[in-house]
Amino acid sequence: MNDANYPWFILVPDRANITEIFQLDETEQKQLITESSLLSRILADRFNADKINIAALGNIVPQLHIHHIARYTTDAAWPAPVWGKLPARPYTDDEKNQVINRLQPGLGESFEYHC
Amino acid sequence: MNDANYPWFILVPDRANITEIFQLDETEQKQLITESSLLSRILADRFNADKINIAALGNIVPQLHIHHIARYTTDAAWPAPVWGKLPARPYTDDEKNQVINRLQPGLGESFEYHC
Repeated sequence: MNDANYPWFILVPDRANITEIFQLDETEQKQLITESSLLSRILADRFNADKINIAALGNIVPQLHIHHIARYTTDAAWPAPVWGKLPARPYTDDEKNQVINRLQPGLGESFEYHC
Repeated sequence: MNDANYPWFILVPDRANITEIFQLDETEQKQLITESSLLSRILADRFNADKINIAALGNIVPQLHIHHIARYTTDAAWPAPVWGKLPARPYTDDEKNQVINRLQPGLGESFEYHC
């Protein structure tokens, strides 16, 4: 997410025409929670998050996507959820590259990146 | 959740000292997404939801819990997430019993209810 207020990543399962997690089959659901937990653990460890917030909302963009947000007790929206709290602060190119370089190692080849 | 604005249920995995989904082991994670999807499907079908919102936040209450909210394009917070939007409207006893009776069939014996 192009919002430097928080390290905020959106996991988009590469499946067409899916809007709800329960529409994935059993194997796909297992893959989703495994990949979500890998991403979450990296956010907790490598970004020193105090809490990970995970959410599948999709009220506006229906294609299934799962928010993963590294939260800090010192961030500007804490302890509220992030939605609707602060205007997005776009990353500079340098900041964006730093975040991507911190994120990628260990995520493995099943992840593709779009930003 | 004692808030009649939306059918809103909180799934609490019966594990002590867990604050993040990634702290569950592989078998527990699989059980979580299976039970979450069963609950979500029942909300979608039996409560005629337009969208299911699922979230693991836990910024205030650390024990792992996952929100499951049946959303409607006609509900008062749509399309925003529900947090911080409306004051909770407590159920009457009749309303509460109706919701529980609508929810329970099909959820099976691995679920316990607290309200």
